Amino acid sequence: MGPKESNWILVAQCPSRLGTVDVVTRFLKESRCYITEQHSFDDRQGGGFFIRTEFRPEAEGFDRVAFEAGFAERAAEFDMTFELTAPGTRMPVVIMVSRADHCLNDLLYRYRIGQLPIDICAIVSNHPDLASLAEWHGIAYHHFPITPESKAEQEAKVWVVVEETGAELVILARYMRVLSSEMCERLSGRAINIHHSLLPGFKGAKPYHQAYDKGVKLVGATAHYINDDLDEGPIITQGVESVSHTDYPEDLVAKGRDIECLTLARAVALHVERRVFLHASRTVVFDR
Amino acid sequence: MGPKESNWILVAQCPSRLGTVDVVTRFLKESRCYITEQHSFDDRQGGGFFIRTEFRPEAEGFDRVAFEAGFAERAAEFDMTFELTAPGTRMPVVIMVSRADHCLNDLLYRYRIGQLPIDICAIVSNHPDLASLAEWHGIAYHHFPITPESKAEQEAKVWVVVEETGAELVILARYMRVLSSEMCERLSGRAINIHHSLLPGFKGAKPYHQAYDKGVKLVGATAHYINDDLDEGPIITQGVESVSHTDYPEDLVAKGRDIECLTLARAVALHVERRVFLHASRTVVFDR
Amino acid sequence: MGPKESNWILVAQCPSRLGTVDVVTRFLKESRCYITEQHSFDDRQGGGFFIRTEFRPEAEGFDRVAFEAGFAERAAEFDMTFELTAPGTRMPVVIMVSRADHCLNDLLYRYRIGQLPIDICAIVSNHPDLASLAEWHGIAYHHFPITPESKAEQEAKVWVVVEETGAELVILARYMRVLSSEMCERLSGRAINIHHSLLPGFKGAKPYHQAYDKGVKLVGATAHYINDDLDEGPIITQGVESVSHTDYPEDLVAKGRDIECLTLARAVALHVERRVFLHASRTVVFDR
Amino acid sequence: MGPKESNWILVAQCPSRLGTVDVVTRFLKESRCYITEQHSFDDRQGGGFFIRTEFRPEAEGFDRVAFEAGFAERAAEFDMTFELTAPGTRMPVVIMVSRADHCLNDLLYRYRIGQLPIDICAIVSNHPDLASLAEWHGIAYHHFPITPESKAEQEAKVWVVVEETGAELVILARYMRVLSSEMCERLSGRAINIHHSLLPGFKGAKPYHQAYDKGVKLVGATAHYINDDLDEGPIITQGVESVSHTDYPEDLVAKGRDIECLTLARAVALHVERRVFLHASRTVVFDR
Repeated sequence: MGPKESNWILVAQCPSRLGTVDVVTRFLKESRCYITEQHSFDDRQGGGFFIRTEFRPEAEGFDRVAFEAGFAERAAEFDMTFELTAPGTRMPVVIMVSRADHCLNDLLYRYRIGQLPIDICAIVSNHPDLASLAEWHGIAYHHFPITPESKAEQEAKVWVVVEETGAELVILARYMRVLSSEMCERLSGRAINIHHSLLPGFKGAKPYHQAYDKGVKLVGATAHYINDDLDEGPIITQGVESVSHTDYPEDLVAKGRDIECLTLARAVALHVERRVFLHASRTVVFDR
Repeated sequence: MGPKESNWILVAQCPSRLGTVDVVTRFLKESRCYITEQHSFDDRQGGGFFIRTEFRPEAEGFDRVAFEAGFAERAAEFDMTFELTAPGTRMPVVIMVSRADHCLNDLLYRYRIGQLPIDICAIVSNHPDLASLAEWHGIAYHHFPITPESKAEQEAKVWVVVEETGAELVILARYMRVLSSEMCERLSGRAINIHHSLLPGFKGAKPYHQAYDKGVKLVGATAHYINDDLDEGPIITQGVESVSHTDYPEDLVAKGRDIECLTLARAVALHVERRVFLHASRTVVFDR
Repeated sequence: MGPKESNWILVAQCPSRLGTVDVVTRFLKESRCYITEQHSFDDRQGGGFFIRTEFRPEAEGFDRVAFEAGFAERAAEFDMTFELTAPGTRMPVVIMVSRADHCLNDLLYRYRIGQLPIDICAIVSNHPDLASLAEWHGIAYHHFPITPESKAEQEAKVWVVVEETGAELVILARYMRVLSSEMCERLSGRAINIHHSLLPGFKGAKPYHQAYDKGVKLVGATAHYINDDLDEGPIITQGVESVSHTDYPEDLVAKGRDIECLTLARAVALHVERRVFLHASRTVVFDR
Repeated sequence: MGPKESNWILVAQCPSRLGTVDVVTRFLKESRCYITEQHSFDDRQGGGFFIRTEFRPEAEGFDRVAFEAGFAERAAEFDMTFELTAPGTRMPVVIMVSRADHCLNDLLYRYRIGQLPIDICAIVSNHPDLASLAEWHGIAYHHFPITPESKAEQEAKVWVVVEETGAELVILARYMRVLSSEMCERLSGRAINIHHSLLPGFKGAKPYHQAYDKGVKLVGATAHYINDDLDEGPIITQGVESVSHTDYPEDLVAKGRDIECLTLARAVALHVERRVFLHASRTVVFDR
């Protein structure tokens, strides 16, 4: 459940090659960093190396700048990109919603009790409905209505919020509008959407009604990074729930709420704990 | 797990109307039948009434013929169809397979220990591979090869087996050939197929490879009645299993075996215990 | 998900005997009540008959008093107790908590969006911590501190709240004090507790720490009616979650929250929808 | 699903200390071994370091003896024990059974299709019942009856089989006799038992009957290493299944079979793939 308080996280990825693990672990050893957990994977099919390490410095006075500079040199030989995260880091986040508030409510609760290492900087909606919920939690709420004509303008406003808050992640917590290709591009790899079906089944609108018509015995939810192909971005987590003939479409909507909340919250936790790597149209997830 | 040894099962269905439950339960009472479990459902959206009752006659010398004749009269008023199943009835079954034997092996085991109230009359395959497995269980094995040209002829042979054994159910336990529309028509409502994906996702060939390419985090299986629209018949059961980036397509194939076996076995159990009702393109399942 | 808006619910139970279903369904027919769903069970081992019916009156002007009087007469012959619940009934509820707020927060959310047909009349706690949460939802919050000496007195105050609000159900949503035998007696069959383990494993204090020490690979939660034998009352629902060697006790505490919330909420839903019957030390649950 | 064909596995463990990962990965780099997957864990509470690496030699002519000798020198500094497993290694196994054959049947199937990298050298039973099943699979079956007086003698015979076959793992696949302390000692860390309950709930005899009496809503199974404290050895895997009031004890027995098979098979797979580490009374499991 989240990195331990005193742990740093180092994640890195690069093309497949001999010595990729060693270049990371040797540097950590030389820097007197104590590794508490490590996971690496080398994809033999798609190619690509991925590693995640939690560690704590043994020596006092760990110098982050020196560490990053030193490691950058070694990593360069492997065309390795990396990211270092300090203990207690909270990722700045913007949440986008429409009218349904279950996912928002769930994220706000986890945020309030400190279960998710995020800072919710702002909530953006195309509807005014959820303003009071935001207010109780002391979070700025921006109501940016949207019409077919005003979409570009509205997205520009959203973008200003993202930029001004320095948000590193945008969570689409049942935001019911399709983002423009341009917006998807800008948010590539840092916007997570929850879709209320087990993708690739039931893309698009009203998936629970589609599921009812089809007579499925399981419904589900999918959290994925957005891209400009609707409901097609790389999948992070999926959840599932049993249903029966007694469940009418509105019952599926109600039943699905729990699994949507859990699936999205888990995806966000995995992302902010740096457990997810984008890998073409798929993800590598070092789950716990 | 299955009706109790001494219990009869009465199932019935008819168009929605006032008094449908009463017509069943009143007759059972008058016939001095002791109801141990009963489940009914009236579909307010699609219309239709469904009921399943387990009972044991209180009086000695229960007269099945008289019971059926008596009830038929009452049922007629409601356009109600019904079926009565005696305690200890074992449904005659034909199993169709190709080369993969996991579902067959699983069904044979459950059959051997008496967990499924079926009689496996014959196993039919388009390949010779699984003959020895059938032999060990003492079951007739028919190898009917198939080519594009011989399909009609091969299906005719299969049909002879079904007719001669008096099979009431055909189980497609990973039979990898598409049945003709004519065959589907003949087996309507009494042929169950296992498809190795969570339908409607990944229809058609090689669903695990499709799942790998898509990068899903859950794979599954779907047991359904066949109809002449491939992988589209009414769903009975679905099962699911977690997968990760470390699972290559061949790993998904291996992982999926368990969930395919369980999903198919459960569908067969539900069917032979008369817990499944066909209802247009959907099913009503009185699960336990 | 819950009885449909326009449906009445009739539940009944009595000793096992021929004709128990008929006495219910015949009366419903005679009263021109249209049954939409019905489930009955007769326990051949412990003895006892249980039935739950959802119906809507066909005729206008359904007379509840006449219905109850009429049915009481029939039921008396079978020593049958019964309860009739009108459409849209919301059960008055008191929630007891201590400091942990995850179950309370979850119940309040479901209450706020109308997913649980309850009226939360009051929240009672031995700590002041959760007063503002209650306040935001507009619900009375009673802080009744407790010391070893003041327990009887504190429980008397709680009892006054239960009586004055007319609460039909008390939910112990992580209330961390043991109730006296007297209080358990008074609340028999109408107080649901959530225990954070898979009972009968890990009774008593700090079950997640016990689970860590034991090295289990699954943790769970159990919702049960209270009785005066601690953590031993009849079980309604149980839920479960995977854990691993990387989960320290505090991680189990965090991971367990979701499953506690879901398990308790499901038990409350089943209870208020009249799907649960007490049957000696066990329960009969007509789940959906 | 199992190590890839061409991969070696190196596992190691030692007391917690700075540099434990580096000593492994540096040596692999120097030996020109390409790491495809690696997982390490350092237990901050109990102390102890654990690592598992899958790799393939880059250079031709990998010299196992030289590798082991070289690594032994490095490992000695860290009091590190290790084990190297060649690609395609199949662990020699003895299975012990009584009368119930579901777990045996399941293991034999997985063995037959090559899903489990084991060699079943012999099956030992205190009953003759399952001899023909063994025979069909071409495996030696030893019927060693047991009486209170002959227990020591019988165990001696079992031990001879274990020694003569060179079995590295003994699987108690529903063997219904308690092993002596001496036998437990001899098999420490290399005998896996399946118990048909969610330990620590329902230890000892007839756990499904205990579960019925308690009225639980979930039953389960636990696979664990044996030790001389009955049903108390370190847990490897646990599985769970929903049950209801309609399930009498014999139904729980029937329902439990599937989850017992799956839970045991998964534990065996994890063990033979060297994914399980004993750590005092607990296990570290690098699951997939």
